[in-house]
Amino acid sequence: MEVDYRLYLVTDRDYLDDVELKDAVEQAILGGTTLVQVREKHASTREFYKIALQVKSITDYYNVPIIINDRIDVAKAVDADGVHIGQSDMPLKIARKMLGHDKIIGVSAGNIKEALEAQKGGADYVGLGAAFYTGTKKDIDKPIGIDGLKKICDEITIPSVAIGGVNETNYKDVLKSGVTGISVVSAILGKKDFKRAAQNLL
Amino acid sequence: MEVDYRLYLVTDRDYLDDVELKDAVEQAILGGTTLVQVREKHASTREFYKIALQVKSITDYYNVPIIINDRIDVAKAVDADGVHIGQSDMPLKIARKMLGHDKIIGVSAGNIKEALEAQKGGADYVGLGAAFYTGTKKDIDKPIGIDGLKKICDEITIPSVAIGGVNETNYKDVLKSGVTGISVVSAILGKKDFKRAAQNLL
Repeated sequence: MEVDYRLYLVTDRDYLDDVELKDAVEQAILGGTTLVQVREKHASTREFYKIALQVKSITDYYNVPIIINDRIDVAKAVDADGVHIGQSDMPLKIARKMLGHDKIIGVSAGNIKEALEAQKGGADYVGLGAAFYTGTKKDIDKPIGIDGLKKICDEITIPSVAIGGVNETNYKDVLKSGVTGISVVSAILGKKDFKRAAQNLL
Repeated sequence: MEVDYRLYLVTDRDYLDDVELKDAVEQAILGGTTLVQVREKHASTREFYKIALQVKSITDYYNVPIIINDRIDVAKAVDADGVHIGQSDMPLKIARKMLGHDKIIGVSAGNIKEALEAQKGGADYVGLGAAFYTGTKKDIDKPIGIDGLKKICDEITIPSVAIGGVNETNYKDVLKSGVTGISVVSAILGKKDFKRAAQNLL
């Protein structure tokens, strides 16, 4: 599958007050979002499944791939286009075995070693982060930074997206580092106008 | 698969101080535990996967079926014998589609309606609970009680286990209600001698 990694939205319902996630995702897609990852860290399996189904009705309509964070069971249940797995999620080898080669598997990498391991293990892309300090994830040791992103991108051949603190003020510098795209949460969902926020980033 | 539901251990590592779960499970099996469900409500996917693999090395050795709580991805990753799903987990229909008919699927039911729905949906067994007030689950509205268990068991034809507050002082009354077996957490893992605790319940 040819995937457009330029503007990759990762969801976080905590940013949304009185708007449903699927509606926020639709606005983000209308603004140019090219890929959507549904991330639910506190939902029950049933809730995650339902949310994923709702978002998928939108992504399918606009022909934008949908990726599920961590949960291969949810991904399979809704027939998502793939999963994104972190270093504490299912091992890549097992994930690939469960999903087959037609699905996208992205892996979070925080350094060159993890990025090369993911590439060697057959990941379709790496999510490089945290690029910067961010309000979405509070437990960051030391962000990768622009120079760190550049060093990793020089070593890998698979697509990469930078995640963590990427926003409208730094995305141009981030893209110069060599990443294929940018991945954002609050830079879209933390704004009042999701569509315009996406347009400003594309 | 012919399953012996008489003494069904559900794991909870919070009860274990300086003993590994797989070792506790082994003692419980040596005491007569007939079925083991690995439940991990706070672990990362990778941790759950690793714990499940460890427990499975024991259950396989003693030829005792292993069931995974909630997570179909983990169940598939370790090739468990089945899953146990609650009312907030994956819908039964989807779970069956993902696991096929060779795997055990148990469903939690708190009343006759849920038990009959689970039976109609093709569950292999129901976990009836909470039978009584218990320290393991704090958010119980009103336990089913012995009479409630009896009423449910009179209506269903699939195997059932009572769970929630079942222990060495009440299990005989519980079994008189018509359930196939008892399911325990603290009545084994909350004791000093897991093997003896299991023996006392069998």
